[in-house]
Amino acid sequence: MCPIARSLSVIGDRWTMLLIRELLFGIKRFDEFQAQTGMSSHLLSTRLIRLEEEGVVKRTPYQDRPVRYDYRLTEKGKDLFPVILSLRGWGNEWCGLKTSQKPAVRMVHTGCGGEVGAGPTCTTCGERLTPKNVSSSFSKLFARERTHRNTSFGLEKRVRNNSN
Amino acid sequence: MCPIARSLSVIGDRWTMLLIRELLFGIKRFDEFQAQTGMSSHLLSTRLIRLEEEGVVKRTPYQDRPVRYDYRLTEKGKDLFPVILSLRGWGNEWCGLKTSQKPAVRMVHTGCGGEVGAGPTCTTCGERLTPKNVSSSFSKLFARERTHRNTSFGLEKRVRNNSN
Repeated sequence: MCPIARSLSVIGDRWTMLLIRELLFGIKRFDEFQAQTGMSSHLLSTRLIRLEEEGVVKRTPYQDRPVRYDYRLTEKGKDLFPVILSLRGWGNEWCGLKTSQKPAVRMVHTGCGGEVGAGPTCTTCGERLTPKNVSSSFSKLFARERTHRNTSFGLEKRVRNNSN
Repeated sequence: MCPIARSLSVIGDRWTMLLIRELLFGIKRFDEFQAQTGMSSHLLSTRLIRLEEEGVVKRTPYQDRPVRYDYRLTEKGKDLFPVILSLRGWGNEWCGLKTSQKPAVRMVHTGCGGEVGAGPTCTTCGERLTPKNVSSSFSKLFARERTHRNTSFGLEKRVRNNSN
Protein backbone atom coordinates (compact mmCIF):
# COMPACT_ATOMS: atom_id res chain seq x y z
CA MET A 1 0.00 0.00 0.00
CA CYS A 2 2.70 2.48 0.97
CA PRO A 3 4.26 4.04 -2.16
CA ILE A 4 7.73 3.87 -0.57
CA ALA A 5 7.35 0.11 -0.12
CA ARG A 6 5.98 -0.18 -3.66
CA SER A 7 8.98 1.66 -5.10
CA LEU A 8 11.37 -0.44 -3.06
CA SER A 9 9.79 -3.66 -4.29
CA VAL A 10 10.81 -2.60 -7.81
CA ILE A 11 14.14 -0.85 -7.29
CA GLY A 12 15.10 -1.45 -3.66
CA ASP A 13 18.23 -3.37 -4.35
CA ARG A 14 21.75 -2.08 -4.64
CA TRP A 15 22.43 -3.89 -7.92
CA THR A 16 19.29 -2.59 -9.54
CA MET A 17 20.14 1.00 -8.64
CA LEU A 18 23.70 0.60 -9.93
CA LEU A 19 22.21 -0.74 -13.15
CA ILE A 20 19.94 2.29 -13.42
CA ARG A 21 22.95 4.53 -12.86
CA GLU A 22 24.70 2.81 -15.80
CA LEU A 23 21.59 3.14 -17.99
CA LEU A 24 21.46 6.85 -17.14
CA PHE A 25 25.11 7.14 -18.21
CA GLY A 26 23.96 5.78 -21.58
CA ILE A 27 25.35 2.25 -21.21
CA LYS A 28 23.21 -0.20 -23.24
CA ARG A 29 24.99 -3.56 -23.49
CA PHE A 30 24.86 -6.60 -21.25
CA ASP A 31 28.65 -7.10 -21.20
CA GLU A 32 29.34 -3.52 -20.25
CA PHE A 33 26.76 -3.59 -17.42
CA GLN A 34 28.52 -6.66 -16.14
CA ALA A 35 31.97 -5.12 -16.44
CA GLN A 36 30.97 -1.88 -14.69
CA THR A 37 28.85 -3.31 -11.86
CA GLY A 38 30.69 -6.57 -11.24
CA MET A 39 27.42 -8.52 -11.32
CA SER A 40 27.41 -12.17 -12.34
CA SER A 41 25.57 -12.82 -15.60
CA HIS A 42 22.84 -14.69 -13.73
CA LEU A 43 22.31 -11.80 -11.29
CA LEU A 44 22.29 -9.29 -14.14
CA SER A 45 19.79 -11.33 -16.21
CA THR A 46 17.31 -11.61 -13.36
CA ARG A 47 17.54 -7.87 -12.67
CA LEU A 48 17.08 -6.92 -16.31
CA ILE A 49 14.12 -9.29 -16.72
CA ARG A 50 12.48 -7.84 -13.63
CA LEU A 51 13.05 -4.26 -14.79
CA GLU A 52 11.59 -5.10 -18.18
CA GLU A 53 8.52 -6.72 -16.57
CA GLU A 54 8.06 -3.61 -14.44
CA GLY A 55 8.28 -1.36 -17.50
CA VAL A 56 11.44 0.41 -16.30
CA VAL A 57 13.64 -0.92 -19.12
CA LYS A 58 12.92 -1.86 -22.74
CA ARG A 59 15.18 -3.99 -24.90
CA THR A 60 15.59 -4.01 -28.64
CA PRO A 61 17.61 -6.51 -30.68
CA TYR A 62 20.68 -5.06 -32.40
CA GLN A 63 21.97 -8.34 -33.84
CA ASP A 64 20.61 -11.72 -35.03
CA ARG A 65 22.33 -15.12 -34.74
CA PRO A 66 22.95 -15.02 -31.87
CA VAL A 67 20.36 -12.44 -30.99
CA ARG A 68 21.73 -9.61 -28.83
CA TYR A 69 19.86 -6.77 -27.17
CA ASP A 70 20.28 -3.11 -26.34
CA TYR A 71 18.72 -2.01 -23.06
CA ARG A 72 17.27 1.46 -22.53
CA LEU A 73 15.25 3.23 -19.87
CA THR A 74 11.57 3.83 -20.58
CA GLU A 75 9.83 7.04 -19.45
CA LYS A 76 9.13 5.31 -16.13
CA GLY A 77 12.81 4.47 -15.86
CA LYS A 78 14.03 7.96 -16.80
CA ASP A 79 11.75 9.31 -14.11
CA LEU A 80 14.06 7.67 -11.55
CA PHE A 81 16.53 10.47 -12.23
CA PRO A 82 15.41 12.48 -9.14
CA VAL A 83 15.90 9.38 -6.97
CA ILE A 84 19.43 8.93 -8.33
CA LEU A 85 20.16 12.64 -7.85
CA SER A 86 18.97 12.57 -4.24
CA LEU A 87 21.12 9.50 -3.54
CA ARG A 88 24.07 11.25 -5.16
CA GLY A 89 23.44 14.39 -3.11
CA TRP A 90 23.36 12.42 0.12
CA GLY A 91 26.49 10.50 -0.82
CA ASN A 92 28.32 13.73 -1.60
CA GLU A 93 27.19 15.34 1.63
CA TRP A 94 27.66 12.46 4.06
CA CYS A 95 29.72 9.62 2.61
CA GLY A 96 32.34 12.11 1.72
CA LEU A 97 35.34 12.19 -0.41
CA LYS A 98 38.51 13.61 0.99
CA THR A 99 38.41 17.26 -0.04
CA SER A 100 41.46 16.72 -2.24
CA GLN A 101 39.62 14.18 -4.43
CA LYS A 102 37.87 15.30 -7.58
CA PRO A 103 34.23 14.18 -7.95
CA ALA A 104 33.93 10.99 -10.00
CA VAL A 105 31.20 12.40 -12.23
CA ARG A 106 30.62 16.05 -12.96
CA MET A 107 27.03 16.80 -13.92
CA VAL A 108 26.09 20.03 -15.62
CA HIS A 109 22.67 21.37 -16.56
CA THR A 110 23.08 22.07 -20.28
CA GLY A 111 20.27 24.64 -20.19
CA CYS A 112 22.21 27.14 -18.05
CA GLY A 113 25.62 25.56 -17.46
CA GLY A 114 24.95 25.25 -13.72
CA GLU A 115 26.52 22.51 -11.62
CA VAL A 116 23.94 19.82 -10.74
CA GLY A 117 23.22 19.37 -7.02
CA ALA A 118 20.85 17.00 -5.25
CA GLY A 119 17.95 17.80 -7.65
CA PRO A 120 15.22 17.52 -8.75
CA THR A 121 15.58 21.07 -10.13
CA CYS A 122 18.66 23.04 -11.14
CA THR A 123 20.07 24.99 -8.18
CA THR A 124 21.19 27.74 -10.56
CA CYS A 125 18.11 28.36 -12.73
CA GLY A 126 15.36 26.25 -11.18
CA GLU A 127 14.55 24.18 -14.28
CA ARG A 128 13.58 20.55 -13.76
CA LEU A 129 16.56 18.27 -14.41
CA THR A 130 16.16 15.30 -16.76
CA PRO A 131 18.64 12.79 -18.19
CA LYS A 132 18.32 14.77 -21.43
CA ASN A 133 19.26 18.22 -20.15
CA VAL A 134 22.10 17.04 -17.90
CA SER A 135 25.49 16.18 -19.31
CA SER A 136 27.78 13.93 -17.26
CA SER A 137 31.53 13.84 -17.63
CA PHE A 138 33.79 11.44 -15.81
CA SER A 139 36.89 12.55 -13.93
CA LYS A 140 40.15 11.26 -15.44
CA LEU A 141 40.52 8.79 -12.59
CA PHE A 142 36.96 7.45 -12.85
CA ALA A 143 37.17 7.24 -16.65
CA ARG A 144 40.41 5.26 -16.30
CA GLU A 145 38.78 3.00 -13.69
CA ARG A 146 35.84 2.35 -16.05
CA THR A 147 38.07 1.63 -19.05
CA HIS A 148 40.12 -0.70 -16.90
CA ARG A 149 36.96 -2.56 -15.80
CA ASN A 150 35.88 -3.01 -19.42
CA THR A 151 39.31 -4.23 -20.50
CA SER A 152 39.83 -6.68 -17.67
CA PHE A 153 36.26 -7.98 -18.04
CA GLY A 154 36.90 -8.58 -21.76
CA LEU A 155 40.17 -10.38 -21.01
CA GLU A 156 38.62 -12.59 -18.35
CA LYS A 157 35.79 -13.48 -20.70
CA ARG A 158 38.20 -14.48 -23.47
CA VAL A 159 40.22 -16.62 -21.07
CA ARG A 160 37.03 -18.26 -19.79
CA ASN A 161 35.81 -18.98 -23.32
CA ASN A 162 39.16 -20.47 -24.37
CA SER A 163 39.30 -22.78 -21.40
CA ASN A 164 35.76 -24.11 -22.06
CA MET B 1 34.38 6.68 -5.83
CA CYS B 2 30.97 7.46 -7.30
CA PRO B 3 28.72 9.06 -4.65
CA ILE B 4 25.75 7.04 -5.89
CA ALA B 5 27.66 3.81 -5.30
CA ARG B 6 28.83 5.11 -1.91
CA SER B 7 25.24 5.89 -0.86
CA LEU B 8 24.05 2.50 -2.06
CA SER B 9 26.74 0.71 -0.08
CA VAL B 10 25.15 2.21 3.06
CA ILE B 11 21.45 2.22 2.28
CA GLY B 12 21.06 0.26 -0.96
CA ASP B 13 18.94 -2.48 0.43
CA ARG B 14 15.17 -2.75 0.55
CA TRP B 15 15.11 -3.66 4.24
CA THR B 16 17.33 -0.78 5.23
CA MET B 17 15.14 1.72 3.42
CA LEU B 18 11.98 0.28 4.98
CA LEU B 19 13.69 0.63 8.36
CA ILE B 20 14.50 4.27 7.62
CA ARG B 21 10.87 4.83 6.64
CA GLU B 22 9.81 3.44 10.03
CA LEU B 23 12.36 5.63 11.85
CA LEU B 24 11.01 8.67 9.99
CA PHE B 25 7.50 7.70 11.15
CA GLY B 26 8.89 7.97 14.70
CA ILE B 27 9.10 4.23 15.42
CA LYS B 28 11.93 3.55 17.92
CA ARG B 29 11.70 -0.01 19.23
CA PHE B 30 13.19 -3.23 17.93
CA ASP B 31 9.97 -5.23 18.24
CA GLU B 32 7.92 -2.69 16.38
CA PHE B 33 10.45 -2.48 13.53
CA GLN B 34 10.21 -6.23 13.28
CA ALA B 35 6.43 -6.22 13.34
CA GLN B 36 6.11 -3.50 10.70
CA THR B 37 8.79 -4.67 8.27
CA GLY B 38 8.49 -8.44 8.70
CA MET B 39 12.26 -8.76 9.12
CA SER B 40 13.73 -11.62 11.14
CA SER B 41 15.45 -10.51 14.33
CA HIS B 42 18.83 -11.51 12.88
CA LEU B 43 18.27 -9.49 9.70
CA LEU B 44 17.07 -6.51 11.72
CA SER B 45 20.05 -6.67 14.12
CA THR B 46 22.60 -6.70 11.31
CA ARG B 47 20.91 -3.75 9.60
CA LEU B 48 20.71 -1.70 12.81
CA ILE B 49 24.36 -2.42 13.68
CA ARG B 50 25.44 -1.38 10.20
CA LEU B 51 23.37 1.82 10.34
CA GLU B 52 24.84 2.66 13.73
CA GLU B 53 28.38 2.05 12.45
CA GLU B 54 27.65 4.34 9.51
CA GLY B 55 26.34 7.06 11.82
CA VAL B 56 22.82 6.96 10.36
CA VAL B 57 21.19 5.70 13.57
CA LYS B 58 22.02 6.20 17.25
CA ARG B 59 20.70 4.04 20.06
CA THR B 60 20.10 4.93 23.70
CA PRO B 61 19.16 2.49 26.48
CA TYR B 62 15.66 2.99 27.89
CA GLN B 63 15.77 0.02 30.27
CA ASP B 64 18.32 -2.02 32.30
CA ARG B 65 18.17 -5.77 33.06
CA PRO B 66 17.73 -6.76 30.34
CA VAL B 67 19.08 -3.68 28.61
CA ARG B 68 16.81 -2.41 25.84
CA TYR B 69 17.43 0.35 23.32
CA ASP B 70 15.60 3.12 21.53
CA TYR B 71 16.77 3.79 17.97
CA ARG B 72 16.69 7.23 16.40
CA LEU B 73 17.97 8.85 13.23
CA THR B 74 21.04 11.08 13.50
CA GLU B 75 21.37 14.26 11.40
CA LYS B 76 22.92 12.11 8.67
CA GLY B 77 19.92 9.79 8.89
CA LYS B 78 17.33 12.58 8.87
CA ASP B 79 19.01 13.93 5.78
CA LEU B 80 17.75 10.84 3.93
CA PHE B 81 14.30 12.44 3.95
CA PRO B 82 14.69 13.76 0.35
CA VAL B 83 15.66 10.26 -0.82
CA ILE B 84 12.56 8.81 0.83
CA LEU B 85 10.38 11.58 -0.63
CA SER B 86 11.71 10.99 -4.14
CA LEU B 87 11.07 7.24 -3.82
CA ARG B 88 7.57 8.00 -2.57
CA GLY B 89 6.97 10.42 -5.44
CA TRP B 90 8.06 7.84 -8.00
CA GLY B 91 5.94 5.13 -6.36
CA ASN B 92 2.91 7.40 -6.41
CA GLU B 93 3.47 8.35 -10.03
CA TRP B 94 4.38 4.98 -11.52
CA CYS B 95 3.56 2.08 -9.19
CA GLY B 96 0.11 3.43 -8.89
CA LEU B 97 -2.79 2.87 -6.66
CA LYS B 98 -6.15 2.43 -8.23
CA THR B 99 -7.63 5.93 -8.24
CA SER B 100 -10.33 4.82 -5.82
CA GLN B 101 -7.76 3.99 -3.13
CA LYS B 102 -6.81 6.55 -0.52
CA PRO B 103 -3.07 7.15 -0.08
CA ALA B 104 -1.61 5.11 2.77
CA VAL B 105 0.17 8.06 4.31
CA ARG B 106 -0.84 11.68 3.96
CA MET B 107 2.06 14.06 4.42
CA VAL B 108 1.48 17.73 5.09
CA HIS B 109 3.98 20.56 5.39
CA THR B 110 3.07 22.04 8.78
CA GLY B 111 4.56 25.42 7.81
CA CYS B 112 1.89 26.19 5.16
CA GLY B 113 -0.53 23.24 5.26
CA GLY B 114 0.47 22.18 1.74
CA GLU B 115 0.32 18.57 0.59
CA VAL B 116 3.82 17.06 0.33
CA GLY B 117 4.87 15.91 -3.15
CA ALA B 118 8.13 14.34 -4.32
CA GLY B 119 10.26 16.91 -2.42
CA PRO B 120 12.79 18.10 -1.47
CA THR B 121 10.92 21.42 -1.13
CA CYS B 122 7.25 22.14 -0.52
CA THR B 123 5.34 22.41 -3.81
CA THR B 124 3.03 25.00 -2.24
CA CYS B 125 5.44 27.43 -0.54
CA GLY B 126 8.92 26.28 -1.59
CA GLU B 127 10.31 25.72 1.91
CA ARG B 128 12.74 22.83 2.38
CA LEU B 129 10.93 19.80 3.83
CA THR B 130 12.38 18.06 6.90
CA PRO B 131 11.07 15.26 9.13
CA LYS B 132 10.34 18.02 11.65
CA ASN B 133 8.15 20.27 9.51
CA VAL B 134 6.19 17.45 7.86
CA SER B 135 3.38 15.70 9.67
CA SER B 136 2.36 12.24 8.49
CA SER B 137 -1.04 10.71 9.10
CA PHE B 138 -2.02 7.18 8.19
CA SER B 139 -5.17 6.35 6.27
CA LYS B 140 -7.70 4.33 8.30
CA LEU B 141 -6.86 1.22 6.31
CA PHE B 142 -3.09 1.60 6.69
CA ALA B 143 -3.42 2.42 10.41
CA ARG B 144 -5.52 -0.72 10.84
CA GLU B 145 -2.97 -2.77 8.88
CA ARG B 146 -0.16 -1.46 11.12
CA THR B 147 -2.06 -2.15 14.34
CA HIS B 148 -2.84 -5.62 13.06
CA ARG B 149 0.87 -6.25 12.34
CA ASN B 150 1.82 -5.18 15.86
CA THR B 151 -0.87 -7.32 17.46
CA SER B 152 -0.16 -10.46 15.49
CA PHE B 153 3.59 -10.03 15.97
CA GLY B 154 3.04 -9.76 19.76
CA LEU B 155 0.85 -12.86 19.75
CA GLU B 156 3.32 -14.90 17.73
CA LYS B 157 6.12 -13.83 20.03
CA ARG B 158 4.19 -14.91 23.13
CA VAL B 159 3.36 -18.27 21.55
CA ARG B 160 7.02 -18.74 20.60
CA ASN B 161 8.22 -17.87 24.09
CA ASN B 162 5.72 -20.22 25.74
CA SER B 163 6.71 -23.13 23.57
CA ASN B 164 10.43 -22.64 24.38
